[in-house]
Amino acid sequence: MANTNASKIFNLVGAEAVLTEAEDLRQYLTGFASSFGYVLTDRNGSTFYTDPRYLEAAENALKGSEIAVKKFVTPLEELLHEYKEIAVPIERISYTSYKRLSDLGLKIADSSQAFTHAMAVKADYEISSIKKACKIADEAFVQLLSQIKEGMTENEVAAFLEFLMRKGGASGASFDTIVCFGENSSVPHHEPNARKLRFGDVVLIDFGCKVDGYCSDCTRTFLFGDDKKHSEFKKSYASVLEAHMLVKEQLKCGMTGGEADAIARNCLKNYGLDGLFTHSLGHGIGLNIHEFPRISPKSDDKLVNGMVFSDEPGVYLVGDYGIRIEDTVMLENDKVVSLTDSDKKLIIL
Amino acid sequence: MANTNASKIFNLVGAEAVLTEAEDLRQYLTGFASSFGYVLTDRNGSTFYTDPRYLEAAENALKGSEIAVKKFVTPLEELLHEYKEIAVPIERISYTSYKRLSDLGLKIADSSQAFTHAMAVKADYEISSIKKACKIADEAFVQLLSQIKEGMTENEVAAFLEFLMRKGGASGASFDTIVCFGENSSVPHHEPNARKLRFGDVVLIDFGCKVDGYCSDCTRTFLFGDDKKHSEFKKSYASVLEAHMLVKEQLKCGMTGGEADAIARNCLKNYGLDGLFTHSLGHGIGLNIHEFPRISPKSDDKLVNGMVFSDEPGVYLVGDYGIRIEDTVMLENDKVVSLTDSDKKLIIL
Repeated sequence: MANTNASKIFNLVGAEAVLTEAEDLRQYLTGFASSFGYVLTDRNGSTFYTDPRYLEAAENALKGSEIAVKKFVTPLEELLHEYKEIAVPIERISYTSYKRLSDLGLKIADSSQAFTHAMAVKADYEISSIKKACKIADEAFVQLLSQIKEGMTENEVAAFLEFLMRKGGASGASFDTIVCFGENSSVPHHEPNARKLRFGDVVLIDFGCKVDGYCSDCTRTFLFGDDKKHSEFKKSYASVLEAHMLVKEQLKCGMTGGEADAIARNCLKNYGLDGLFTHSLGHGIGLNIHEFPRISPKSDDKLVNGMVFSDEPGVYLVGDYGIRIEDTVMLENDKVVSLTDSDKKLIIL
Repeated sequence: MANTNASKIFNLVGAEAVLTEAEDLRQYLTGFASSFGYVLTDRNGSTFYTDPRYLEAAENALKGSEIAVKKFVTPLEELLHEYKEIAVPIERISYTSYKRLSDLGLKIADSSQAFTHAMAVKADYEISSIKKACKIADEAFVQLLSQIKEGMTENEVAAFLEFLMRKGGASGASFDTIVCFGENSSVPHHEPNARKLRFGDVVLIDFGCKVDGYCSDCTRTFLFGDDKKHSEFKKSYASVLEAHMLVKEQLKCGMTGGEADAIARNCLKNYGLDGLFTHSLGHGIGLNIHEFPRISPKSDDKLVNGMVFSDEPGVYLVGDYGIRIEDTVMLENDKVVSLTDSDKKLIIL
């Protein structure tokens, strides 16, 4: 199945030529991962310029596609001299790159929005990679649970989970794994440290991995032993899980990100917990761990079939505990399908 | 010992005010690691603006220093309205950030070179962190050697080594660990894949970790069992090791990067191997894994006491094998001191 993303972006942008260097955007255009190169598209087609490290593999991967492959030898300036106008992702470009283009006398158009919107709706091959990344994360988490022991540090658990995901076939973590023990779980973006695991601790782990460049994202909260001091925590856990599941039941194609967010927020309001839900319900997931659409109170972004995003309500009692339950999900045939899906019933180890 | 980097940079730049957002540069100015903030310096002093996540820790860390700490609340524009000129690291800044400043009517100066040169010469507290990162990498490598088994994949070994470094106290790898088995070792920037380890393989591992944000960098090449087909490899290994050691003996304060590079390149020339030494001898190491000075054939960068850099000669026979022997070293009292220092005699597992 030929990837036609390059011509899709060219048509969306409507400029004389489109020049793309950023690694994720370049991979989106070619379907091919590389750490160096440019894709140049004009009305005659697309060419991927790269260096000898990737040349042979790119030629094989893109044979018969709409994208020609050439060795990058000529200075960029020469490749562009026939154009009067060039589109680049202005939101993503360095000042130095921008100046280099404007010094050539080129009119500069912006391709950022075209990429943002096109990349939000995933093709089958992209879904397939995301599903693999989700399955590896699920399996690594289950393996981790059997190995967690009193006295391990947050940093050690994070490192071990990342090891398990790579051992399972991921190329790496999709972001720095968040591991929080006890009171640290009340900080949504806590960085793992030398805090040791103690009996009765709330444990919150936010993790994901990459396959073919595509990300998974998952959070689980559980108890390391029940010291019988957690009755309020258990009630809150049930509420957050209800909010999480309600999103999966009620979210429909055509809703805005704001409407999706409100499903969870209103549910938590019924329990007086909405004031402790201090972040957005979710975010798009793909080649980047955070991308379009935004699923937050004020978002007008329309949610449609083929979008992959997180469903992650949470509540945080500062200095006490936090709870977040997150799955990577997709909209398919007007229904939410969970792509990460390890058990969400409260685990007490 | 108070860190005076902010006033050092201000004096080097010579602009009315210096605004610094980039994470590594901000850490250099404050000595404090954070993922969000701005440092603003003018003739009255420096202020670190950050968000509530870091506020308390920053206030404690910077008490009595030359840097005041404030909560970032006011739009950036208001903080800058009293200036006519502002210096930013132009080589590092996005077009969007640049435009935001120039739209305020500010004259924009460049702080890039001041940072590049100041950061190359390390203070004692920086050396101390780099030494820790080197020691952790050394120890993790020794542990790894006892665990390597036939049939493990490159990806698995890379993941395991990164796990060991984090278990040893590092916050993470300083770059994606390179693990090459057999013929893959002939590709200097090979990415680990599912290639399995076989008896008689050459193994090349390039790795490092971070402590307090500071990097280590080390490469070892060894044999996984001796299938008696490696007599040429063993000769070449001895030559690369001789080149590596000669740099440590002969490199002196005041030499240029080009002169340092020539020590290794001339040594390999004696063995007819200089044509296979296809990269530079080394690079500066600090908060970034690649920084000033450049240690390459054409580099005029002066090497002085307090600089930390890599000594990494290598030879590569395409499709056959590669050898690279690398230590993180520093110049101290006009002598090269090795900071990574695990055994470099040819290991045959």
